[in-house]
Amino acid sequence: MSGQGRFLSFEGIDGSGKSTQARRLAEYLKSAGHDVVFTREPGGSAGAEDIRKLVLEGDADRWSPATELLLFTAARRDHLERLILPALDAGQIVISDRYVDSTRIYQGVSRGDLRRQVDQLHELMIGREADLTILIDMDPKIGLSRAFARQGGEERFETMGQDMHQKMREGFLDLAAQAPERIKVIDGARTVDEVAEDVRAVVDAFLS
Amino acid sequence: MSGQGRFLSFEGIDGSGKSTQARRLAEYLKSAGHDVVFTREPGGSAGAEDIRKLVLEGDADRWSPATELLLFTAARRDHLERLILPALDAGQIVISDRYVDSTRIYQGVSRGDLRRQVDQLHELMIGREADLTILIDMDPKIGLSRAFARQGGEERFETMGQDMHQKMREGFLDLAAQAPERIKVIDGARTVDEVAEDVRAVVDAFLS
Ligand SMILES: Nc1ncnc2c1ncn2[C@@H]1O[C@H](COP(=O)(O)OP(=O)(O)OP(=O)(O)O)[C@@H](O)[C@H]1O
Ligand SMILES: Nc1ncnc2c1ncn2[C@@H]1O[C@H](COP(=O)(O)OP(=O)(O)OP(=O)(O)O)[C@@H](O)[C@H]1O
Ligand SMILES: [Mg+2]
Ligand SMILES: [Mg+2]
Repeated sequence: MSGQGRFLSFEGIDGSGKSTQARRLAEYLKSAGHDVVFTREPGGSAGAEDIRKLVLEGDADRWSPATELLLFTAARRDHLERLILPALDAGQIVISDRYVDSTRIYQGVSRGDLRRQVDQLHELMIGREADLTILIDMDPKIGLSRAFARQGGEERFETMGQDMHQKMREGFLDLAAQAPERIKVIDGARTVDEVAEDVRAVVDAFLS
Repeated sequence: MSGQGRFLSFEGIDGSGKSTQARRLAEYLKSAGHDVVFTREPGGSAGAEDIRKLVLEGDADRWSPATELLLFTAARRDHLERLILPALDAGQIVISDRYVDSTRIYQGVSRGDLRRQVDQLHELMIGREADLTILIDMDPKIGLSRAFARQGGEERFETMGQDMHQKMREGFLDLAAQAPERIKVIDGARTVDEVAEDVRAVVDAFLS
């Protein structure tokens, strides 16, 4: 499969189970004999992790939405050039916990009115979409309560209202409606095992 | 003059005398009673200086040309939003030691083939040009020998060949030919006082 790697991404609102399911899928594919690279955004490569740190440290208003968008795009470019593309060229399966759809929603919908710039910046400086995206969908109240239960989740949630989470859910579903070939929606409001089973079915179908 | 500030930039190859002349002009305008803000790029605002540090520290190949371009654009956006535009809104004269023409030449010409992206990125995320740009022009050999004489200048020059400096000079002159209203070319191969006199004449004419 050299030069024929596959690029999978996990997307969804905060606390929806992306990291849990992405790790599960990585283990499953490895045990099935695939060569898997597990990564995440923002970050994923040495330079991108440094940019991530710069963006996330300091006061909430340290960066404007537009500056933040540019910094995350710089991080993605580094991640793409240094980790994702070389892995795909080597025929590996890359699984990324968040990718460009998160930017479309977080920077494009929730952090200001940058939707047009997000897409044009992507086209100009990134270009590469995931081959398959798993969107874990659920009522934001469920993700919210899960994240409350998880240590460290509280602060982030307190900064955004329920309305905003509902808008973000709808934003993700709109993206899926616009790109039904690439983005597969999975109901995340079930047990980890049930969700994982659906994820496997979608990915097995995609890989075969 | 509230809301009526003026934005001046200095451009030119390494060692051409930008910083010397920009500082001279700031002193001159202040003594003439103007409210002047002196700044520089990359950097110029707190966030932009942090991004500058991130870009310039580490190995020379730490960032690809495209990632570097995105990081410098993020720095410029911060500089513009946090320092330049507020100063202009307050009616001040902003003097910047380098601005977007440096990116057009350094990232667009010398660091890879990104000329098209530089302009599109500028249009998409920055938009604001200087009102008047002083291009200090000279044979690169002169700037080179000046920078050799100045402490700390050596390393940077050793990393780029004479050909590249010649290309950059021509790149700046091409920009000036394309935007003759905004960019004024001044012969920098003379004494500091002689160059400063020409700079004042151009700026006085512009401000009156
Ligand atoms: N199906 C599930 N049922 C119940 N709890 C779950 C389920 N999936 C994940 N969790 C738990 O919910 C919390 C959030 O899960 P996870 O960290 O995987 O979500 P995430 O989408 O990656 O969140 P974030 O957006 O904050 O990165 C974790 O404590 C996790 O153990
Ligand atoms: N007209 C001049 N004649 C002789 N030396 C000069 C003249 N102008 C500046 N210099 C000296 O040349 C060196 C480079 O000048 P300066 O730092 O102003 O250039 P610069 O364009 O800002 O350089 P850089 O691109 O490295 O920032 C300094 O040591 C400065 O004192
Ligand atoms: Mg996660
Ligand atoms: Mg200088």
